[in-house]
Amino acid sequence: MSDHHFTFEEVQGFARLDHDRAARQGLPEFVYAGHKTPEQVAAIMASMVARQGCALASRAAQSHADAVRAALPEAHYNATAGLITVGQMPRQAVGLVRVVAAGTSDLPVAEEAVGVLDFLGDRVERLYDVGVAGVHRLLAHVDELAEADVLIVVAGMEGALPTVVGGLVAPPIIAVPTSVGYGVSLQGLAALLGMLNSCAPGVCVVNIDNGLGAAAAAHRILNGLRRSSGSAAS
Amino acid sequence: MSDHHFTFEEVQGFARLDHDRAARQGLPEFVYAGHKTPEQVAAIMASMVARQGCALASRAAQSHADAVRAALPEAHYNATAGLITVGQMPRQAVGLVRVVAAGTSDLPVAEEAVGVLDFLGDRVERLYDVGVAGVHRLLAHVDELAEADVLIVVAGMEGALPTVVGGLVAPPIIAVPTSVGYGVSLQGLAALLGMLNSCAPGVCVVNIDNGLGAAAAAHRILNGLRRSSGSAAS
Amino acid sequence: MSDHHFTFEEVQGFARLDHDRAARQGLPEFVYAGHKTPEQVAAIMASMVARQGCALASRAAQSHADAVRAALPEAHYNATAGLITVGQMPRQAVGLVRVVAAGTSDLPVAEEAVGVLDFLGDRVERLYDVGVAGVHRLLAHVDELAEADVLIVVAGMEGALPTVVGGLVAPPIIAVPTSVGYGVSLQGLAALLGMLNSCAPGVCVVNIDNGLGAAAAAHRILNGLRRSSGSAAS
Amino acid sequence: MSDHHFTFEEVQGFARLDHDRAARQGLPEFVYAGHKTPEQVAAIMASMVARQGCALASRAAQSHADAVRAALPEAHYNATAGLITVGQMPRQAVGLVRVVAAGTSDLPVAEEAVGVLDFLGDRVERLYDVGVAGVHRLLAHVDELAEADVLIVVAGMEGALPTVVGGLVAPPIIAVPTSVGYGVSLQGLAALLGMLNSCAPGVCVVNIDNGLGAAAAAHRILNGLRRSSGSAAS
Amino acid sequence: MSDHHFTFEEVQGFARLDHDRAARQGLPEFVYAGHKTPEQVAAIMASMVARQGCALASRAAQSHADAVRAALPEAHYNATAGLITVGQMPRQAVGLVRVVAAGTSDLPVAEEAVGVLDFLGDRVERLYDVGVAGVHRLLAHVDELAEADVLIVVAGMEGALPTVVGGLVAPPIIAVPTSVGYGVSLQGLAALLGMLNSCAPGVCVVNIDNGLGAAAAAHRILNGLRRSSGSAAS
Amino acid sequence: MSDHHFTFEEVQGFARLDHDRAARQGLPEFVYAGHKTPEQVAAIMASMVARQGCALASRAAQSHADAVRAALPEAHYNATAGLITVGQMPRQAVGLVRVVAAGTSDLPVAEEAVGVLDFLGDRVERLYDVGVAGVHRLLAHVDELAEADVLIVVAGMEGALPTVVGGLVAPPIIAVPTSVGYGVSLQGLAALLGMLNSCAPGVCVVNIDNGLGAAAAAHRILNGLRRSSGSAAS
Amino acid sequence: MSDHHFTFEEVQGFARLDHDRAARQGLPEFVYAGHKTPEQVAAIMASMVARQGCALASRAAQSHADAVRAALPEAHYNATAGLITVGQMPRQAVGLVRVVAAGTSDLPVAEEAVGVLDFLGDRVERLYDVGVAGVHRLLAHVDELAEADVLIVVAGMEGALPTVVGGLVAPPIIAVPTSVGYGVSLQGLAALLGMLNSCAPGVCVVNIDNGLGAAAAAHRILNGLRRSSGSAAS
Amino acid sequence: MSDHHFTFEEVQGFARLDHDRAARQGLPEFVYAGHKTPEQVAAIMASMVARQGCALASRAAQSHADAVRAALPEAHYNATAGLITVGQMPRQAVGLVRVVAAGTSDLPVAEEAVGVLDFLGDRVERLYDVGVAGVHRLLAHVDELAEADVLIVVAGMEGALPTVVGGLVAPPIIAVPTSVGYGVSLQGLAALLGMLNSCAPGVCVVNIDNGLGAAAAAHRILNGLRRSSGSAAS
Repeated sequence: MSDHHFTFEEVQGFARLDHDRAARQGLPEFVYAGHKTPEQVAAIMASMVARQGCALASRAAQSHADAVRAALPEAHYNATAGLITVGQMPRQAVGLVRVVAAGTSDLPVAEEAVGVLDFLGDRVERLYDVGVAGVHRLLAHVDELAEADVLIVVAGMEGALPTVVGGLVAPPIIAVPTSVGYGVSLQGLAALLGMLNSCAPGVCVVNIDNGLGAAAAAHRILNGLRRSSGSAAS
Repeated sequence: MSDHHFTFEEVQGFARLDHDRAARQGLPEFVYAGHKTPEQVAAIMASMVARQGCALASRAAQSHADAVRAALPEAHYNATAGLITVGQMPRQAVGLVRVVAAGTSDLPVAEEAVGVLDFLGDRVERLYDVGVAGVHRLLAHVDELAEADVLIVVAGMEGALPTVVGGLVAPPIIAVPTSVGYGVSLQGLAALLGMLNSCAPGVCVVNIDNGLGAAAAAHRILNGLRRSSGSAAS
Repeated sequence: MSDHHFTFEEVQGFARLDHDRAARQGLPEFVYAGHKTPEQVAAIMASMVARQGCALASRAAQSHADAVRAALPEAHYNATAGLITVGQMPRQAVGLVRVVAAGTSDLPVAEEAVGVLDFLGDRVERLYDVGVAGVHRLLAHVDELAEADVLIVVAGMEGALPTVVGGLVAPPIIAVPTSVGYGVSLQGLAALLGMLNSCAPGVCVVNIDNGLGAAAAAHRILNGLRRSSGSAAS
Repeated sequence: MSDHHFTFEEVQGFARLDHDRAARQGLPEFVYAGHKTPEQVAAIMASMVARQGCALASRAAQSHADAVRAALPEAHYNATAGLITVGQMPRQAVGLVRVVAAGTSDLPVAEEAVGVLDFLGDRVERLYDVGVAGVHRLLAHVDELAEADVLIVVAGMEGALPTVVGGLVAPPIIAVPTSVGYGVSLQGLAALLGMLNSCAPGVCVVNIDNGLGAAAAAHRILNGLRRSSGSAAS
Repeated sequence: MSDHHFTFEEVQGFARLDHDRAARQGLPEFVYAGHKTPEQVAAIMASMVARQGCALASRAAQSHADAVRAALPEAHYNATAGLITVGQMPRQAVGLVRVVAAGTSDLPVAEEAVGVLDFLGDRVERLYDVGVAGVHRLLAHVDELAEADVLIVVAGMEGALPTVVGGLVAPPIIAVPTSVGYGVSLQGLAALLGMLNSCAPGVCVVNIDNGLGAAAAAHRILNGLRRSSGSAAS
Repeated sequence: MSDHHFTFEEVQGFARLDHDRAARQGLPEFVYAGHKTPEQVAAIMASMVARQGCALASRAAQSHADAVRAALPEAHYNATAGLITVGQMPRQAVGLVRVVAAGTSDLPVAEEAVGVLDFLGDRVERLYDVGVAGVHRLLAHVDELAEADVLIVVAGMEGALPTVVGGLVAPPIIAVPTSVGYGVSLQGLAALLGMLNSCAPGVCVVNIDNGLGAAAAAHRILNGLRRSSGSAAS
Repeated sequence: MSDHHFTFEEVQGFARLDHDRAARQGLPEFVYAGHKTPEQVAAIMASMVARQGCALASRAAQSHADAVRAALPEAHYNATAGLITVGQMPRQAVGLVRVVAAGTSDLPVAEEAVGVLDFLGDRVERLYDVGVAGVHRLLAHVDELAEADVLIVVAGMEGALPTVVGGLVAPPIIAVPTSVGYGVSLQGLAALLGMLNSCAPGVCVVNIDNGLGAAAAAHRILNGLRRSSGSAAS
Repeated sequence: MSDHHFTFEEVQGFARLDHDRAARQGLPEFVYAGHKTPEQVAAIMASMVARQGCALASRAAQSHADAVRAALPEAHYNATAGLITVGQMPRQAVGLVRVVAAGTSDLPVAEEAVGVLDFLGDRVERLYDVGVAGVHRLLAHVDELAEADVLIVVAGMEGALPTVVGGLVAPPIIAVPTSVGYGVSLQGLAALLGMLNSCAPGVCVVNIDNGLGAAAAAHRILNGLRRSSGSAAS
């Protein structure tokens, strides 16, 4: 086995942190607050900050934010995106991600992706409310789409937006289905299926509402660009 | 109860024909050959022709066609569409249906719709291979789409075509999901869900691969147009 | 590409309105309040009213209505149907939609359809509580059913009403499954499947509880009638 | 524990027959041929006949019938119903089952029910091709429906027939969904869900295509009638 | 058409009562309170009582009971079963239903069946907490099971109880799956599937948690017994 | 990391054998023939035999057996169980597995478990055709069930057998659902769900038709018994 | 039938306790509090304690604990695990279960298993937060895994941990999927499916979040070890 | 709208080729042969070759290959991968894709990805048979994994391989579930769900068995690398 990084520490008996993850995966460990108590989130983030200087928790409620701020007063909470951040990773010179969203209702997921990319030091731009029921709104922005290094395309309901985008431009496309809809949207399953069946080749997909996962996938791609151009900040 | 038409006859003990259906519903009874034996299909069609002068069977295999032709030599079999027809209903002066299909693989379903409309005497035009992965192919035909009285839009995979069409033009749209695809297309379920969740309002949907049902729905709409313009042939 | 209408404006950075939609699709843009904040709904409706003189939001709660009324005191809120409306489109002389509902529990969905049609200027009549477990209640109204230009048929549980109606009369039928039921009604999925598998040809279907979508589909049909009779008000 | 009957025998090491089942359950053991080899079916039926004088196998193919006839030349094979029978149980004076079927395609399932009832000695009548898309065909037979002691109602596609029947007449109703249909009929699941969600109270349901199960349920009811009227033949 | 009873009345515009249902179906109309407002339930029950002297509402919450009692002070509310009753139908001399339940958690559904049968005038006995994980508890009661005219068997989780009962005794068996369980009980779907796949022939099934439906099915059977023995009270 | 065994070899570029698996897991590597060509299966088995003296392939068709025998003439093929074996592991003195099957149709799956256990050197006994619709057949064998060290319980349809067994005796129970059934057996899914929801605690479950997996799980338990009693042959 | 233990008692008419279950199954009866009222839980536990000296209820909320403590002041409530215990079974000398959990969010389920094993007198050790996204965390503990007599492996999301563990070491593995996740984790269904499809042979699975079931299965295995080594305390 | 490329041509009335797709999307149009006739595939490929000099068809059977070779004798058919190719795109100097596969059975899907990348001119290396049930096989190759520019990770059954890979190294990961498995693998759905729920962040996923889609996604990423390094051949 090569000299890849394999160390970790225990936090109060319930968490085994993986501090070398950034070196190994090009991504730090994130805290998924959704199923954790405020106290668990605060303890884990404090340990991360002590070790690596920054930390991010997703799916965080106000109660998580309150507990974290008690321990780490410099913590910032973005309620729309459900993100708590402390510090951030070095700002990168190379690479642009454009986050495209179909409707106003998809904003929380799109903003989760934007917030995570920002924390990771990546440059990110938004293009929102360009759903396919008015395809001209999208066509007006083809050049902006074509110039990005990675496109994150967020849509609920029938989830057709990534297909139309994928038919228009060349960059890598990470499609994020959202749970926006009702009835047979089946909490985002219809959008997920639509994206996986896209007739535009080369669209790849993450879990429903998984803005963070899309951001992480985009960051993996940008890391490759930087390695190839010799410009990575991290 | 009003004087609506309620009579029927028995065919060899296993079928109870509903000959007044055309007067009541504006549509004749069709024979679904899929689960019937060739002999059953031939007997039912012969009875219909004797009574109303024409008949149509859908989902018919070559073996059904052979049995029908033995009894009714004038029968015509369209193998692509799976339709057996004997005669047809009076040709109509008013109303145009345009059948739009996303890809070459969706042809059998689209042709079932075309064949049924032709049998019903309706005028029908085709617009094929205009899938959303190359949306400019569709945009080049916006005027043709806008001029139709009814649009039948056939698509498999992610089923996004009716949504894009519904965002471009005003006519009634009947969306037909097809079982074209693999993996999580789930035999057309993904396309069906996409169409039911369409963000373009006013798209309505029929069962997977149900070209006949779409044609029947279109015919109901055209009948209304004719009643209102005083021109119905039937 | 033809001279179809493709312009839009941005509302406070999160919405990109599509004001020419009515000209293009024959339908204005609606606001789906379900996943939006009261503030977002109020801002979007205000922009719509400023531009086109009227607006409608669906799936609106009291909190949405309060925010809208603060900005637009003339707004009307129908709590049963979940609709906020400001003004309405021109009243139409041609065309009648009959909304048929199986049971008392299906009323909110049926009333959403009624309210949207009323906003669109269409004439609409109700026929409620005629479920198929007492089919004589339905048979007593066959003439009313036959006279409509479009039938919207709303039912939960087993969703059989559109099939029985479709076997009785000729007009176009838009079936709306509702989430009324329990156990294996699966929040309306059983009714939806029943309607998609209807043995009455020419029944088409919209998403579960989608009264608005049914109204929009009906309006597309009525627009065609008006174009053909030369009487459209819009 | 009471003196109920609990004995059995082994057949060639792979089957453990339950010869007292008729005394205990009022029903003999049936052989489900579907997953068994012709040799297994023949051996089991021979053992049953030796012991109780009659036997029935369901879901039997021609190859099963051939193997059984080699061992039991008096065996009868009904290919439509997929039944092999040897002998039958005593003919009963009390009780009438009416088997109602929606369409010609539902015949194999309806005939399985008829054949099993006949084997059990029960009186059975048919009423076929009375689907709800032409509800007047059904209304013409309300008296026949009302006179039966049990109604077995067989339907595929949307499965609405038992609901309409249940709203018209009083006898016990056993609904049998069939796998007739395509697309989102989901091999009979749509019909099953429709029947379980019936808005007509008191409809009960068996597995898809389970004509035998419906016949057995009907026989349990008739046995009760006979016990109460003191007339059981068995 | 025969002289079966087909009349009804409207209640305040939203309900169309079907007062002859008892004569036609052998069952009165029930009120499903689950999706109705307290005011709707009270108005419908008052109309029923005025006409037929008694009424029953199921899935009723305390708020429904309060509204009904304001209008009909003699109304009785059974909170465990979720039933509101006013009066009851004539007590019957013939026929016994035994309601068998697997566990304490299945009680609300079992009690709904008991309460409805009691309202209908039928004699009903309970046998509770005899789940199959301790099959000897069930074997101790074989005689009681065998003596009933109808068995209603209620079970959640894996839903095996009706199969074991069906293998022990002869009466008709109506199986009721309950939503008791967690994880892949899927809100009762696992129990439902288990019952529909029962290897004991002649078990029939109603919707999940549908105690009322099971009672109605049992009442249909008892009505037949009474007709055959000449003893019906109704 | 400890000195656990981690070596492997490549077979003709497409397989990377894991010869130390037996030392590490207490189980050799098995060949799943289902998705492999006859040539691939023969090459992989030949390599295994060369290295470890014995090999087993499951889900093997006659064509696989023919190819293997061409390379390894001593190979044995069990068509019922779908197993090809060459040699076997040392016979064990300690430990008895009893394989219990509900019906004759479940035999292929039960025999796969028996054949794999035999190959592994474990002592195995059969108890077949003891389904729960005749629970007395099972009760007659309680002592045999209680004496086993592990019970593998195989059942299709409603899958209730492991629950009843689990309520009668103490040994570990590995439940195997089979795809025996039709309609809503859903190819074994109903049986699987029933077993996972078992009300008898301590029943654990493997994939549908996975006789091999059940045998492997039993072998892991027996290995522990042998280690604790100091008697393992391997 | 052998002299296995078959007695029980009734508790206040709604529960039929099965006090000989421990002798028969090697496991006492547990109380599933999830669907029971606090009063029911308290009454059942009091009866159990009076008879067998100890009792355990799972899925208990604080309100259950309060009611039990009012009746049984010595009761202990573990809120994380949702367990109420009174007393415990004799401490065992032989056998070690290691409970392995993928992440902090899986703790409640893992702790339910730990608490039940502790109540049963079994020795149990924990190994938490060793998810497969950092597989080195797991590899550092291979010796601890290999030494256990039974491994209970708890994981949500993709549920891959039991497969990796099963590939590393020989003991019996009971996999417990948890409902931790979102989107297409489908409340634990994805993890369940992953575990049932494990490519590591001999992994068996219990219901989602079923820590108690896993503990009971482990106890069955340990009981066998003790019987074989002659050391059982019970 | 910018000057992006929007032209196409019709092929014999059933296909509307999109020859500028490569310029617009960085990918040529592929032919999905699965649902097309041999004649359709041959005609479409001939048109593509005439225009752009090369063409690729996927999911092609021998009959497709025969028809294509009759028209284009230089066509090459790879039966394992199901690919027909004529010519190929220019060989690229920059970028390496490593295709990782869990088992021998996953080869056809992995080879589809390899063949498409080769056609596109990309450098591709294989790493096969490194499933997670023997994780040391994977750990031996960490450096090779870390050096790739894109990893395509192909797995069936529980689909855990991409998660383990994603936890070890930094490059972008495109996960491809395969339909390898049986029972609740549900034709690849279990693997798909496992991958979408991956606890390793930044894994993205394509449809089941979609090797071509993964290759197209990888090519989009490599195109970006080339643009950024100024080395694209195309």
